[in-house]
Amino acid sequence: MPLWKIYHPVAAYSSEDKRAISRALTDVYARAMPRFYVGVVFQEVRADDFYVGGESHPRFVRIWVDHIARTFSSDDMKVRFFEKMNQIFAPWIAGRGYDWELHIDETPFDLWTIQGHFPPKEGSEDEKRWTADNRASPRTHA
Amino acid sequence: MPLWKIYHPVAAYSSEDKRAISRALTDVYARAMPRFYVGVVFQEVRADDFYVGGESHPRFVRIWVDHIARTFSSDDMKVRFFEKMNQIFAPWIAGRGYDWELHIDETPFDLWTIQGHFPPKEGSEDEKRWTADNRASPRTHA
Amino acid sequence: MPLWKIYHPVAAYSSEDKRAISRALTDVYARAMPRFYVGVVFQEVRADDFYVGGESHPRFVRIWVDHIARTFSSDDMKVRFFEKMNQIFAPWIAGRGYDWELHIDETPFDLWTIQGHFPPKEGSEDEKRWTADNRASPRTHA
Repeated sequence: MPLWKIYHPVAAYSSEDKRAISRALTDVYARAMPRFYVGVVFQEVRADDFYVGGESHPRFVRIWVDHIARTFSSDDMKVRFFEKMNQIFAPWIAGRGYDWELHIDETPFDLWTIQGHFPPKEGSEDEKRWTADNRASPRTHA
Repeated sequence: MPLWKIYHPVAAYSSEDKRAISRALTDVYARAMPRFYVGVVFQEVRADDFYVGGESHPRFVRIWVDHIARTFSSDDMKVRFFEKMNQIFAPWIAGRGYDWELHIDETPFDLWTIQGHFPPKEGSEDEKRWTADNRASPRTHA
Repeated sequence: MPLWKIYHPVAAYSSEDKRAISRALTDVYARAMPRFYVGVVFQEVRADDFYVGGESHPRFVRIWVDHIARTFSSDDMKVRFFEKMNQIFAPWIAGRGYDWELHIDETPFDLWTIQGHFPPKEGSEDEKRWTADNRASPRTHA
């Protein structure tokens, strides 16, 4: 459900770094949904292709996320979520001397499929099975 | 209008495959809008850059789409659309042993231009001309 | 705030071109917000990966934008904004024989951080300081 797209400088992160970041993000979401909902795509962007305020920025991490499975239901939840993200990314971004920006969009729940299946509603029996199996399967409830 | 972004494993698809997928998608939309509205961008993502549930996934196709020209007006339309997509992608994804996920966002109709022109409204005379010409041109109606 | 993603043909633009485009865009937004809000990412797409209407398109520039800090408050503002964009891009696109399409999405203001800070509200004292400093800093007002 969340699709994280992480634009970063060339060679900023090793495979181990990327796996660690993805795992930390997945751990946050997994409190509330199946782990396999969390997708993260890393993309190198050369300084030559990356501009902030009209100037090439060689040390910028630009993260943009689509949230699908859940929407934030209160301002408090939003603040706590971003505080958590700040904690997760601090060593990977500020700790390495990068600047960063992050924004999230919320897209329609009913325009989303995994393996061709519409994901089950939050808290449903089907969702519990998807979580337990950590994979999509045909829905057994309406 | 629809902009399809297809993240896929390295070398998953040949030029002929990509053209066939694009053509199949265009055929679906062309029932209701000009063919040239349909844009499809393929992007290779290395397993090393692609994480699902915190683990690198070497065989994942992640598709995300912006719909602009039309919005779904009923749940029934949504279900039929995704059923059609499942048919189109079955040979290219499940048939080749890939996993996949697809989500669609709907973005504002009036924040969109082609060749600098605001596209005409659905069903208008101008839209009929754009469809017939298969290209954008200045609008002749308000 | 705005994140511009510019898909373009391979080698379409030099570093100087990209900087000039980014600067022109930034100049427009800077009338109303800090310059460093404006992010622009250029991405080469091979003709082989780029399809319009089911056919490979070797000379297409596809631009898609997320607006976060501001939303358009009237149809008039939208029209004037796109007229301005047409002026800016004319020499880089039509002037070089490219076709193009542009669409903008508006994403939630309160799901956005820069350097881990929620950006200040439009017209606030904090925003004035961010503009003057041309960088993010902790907010001093609620």
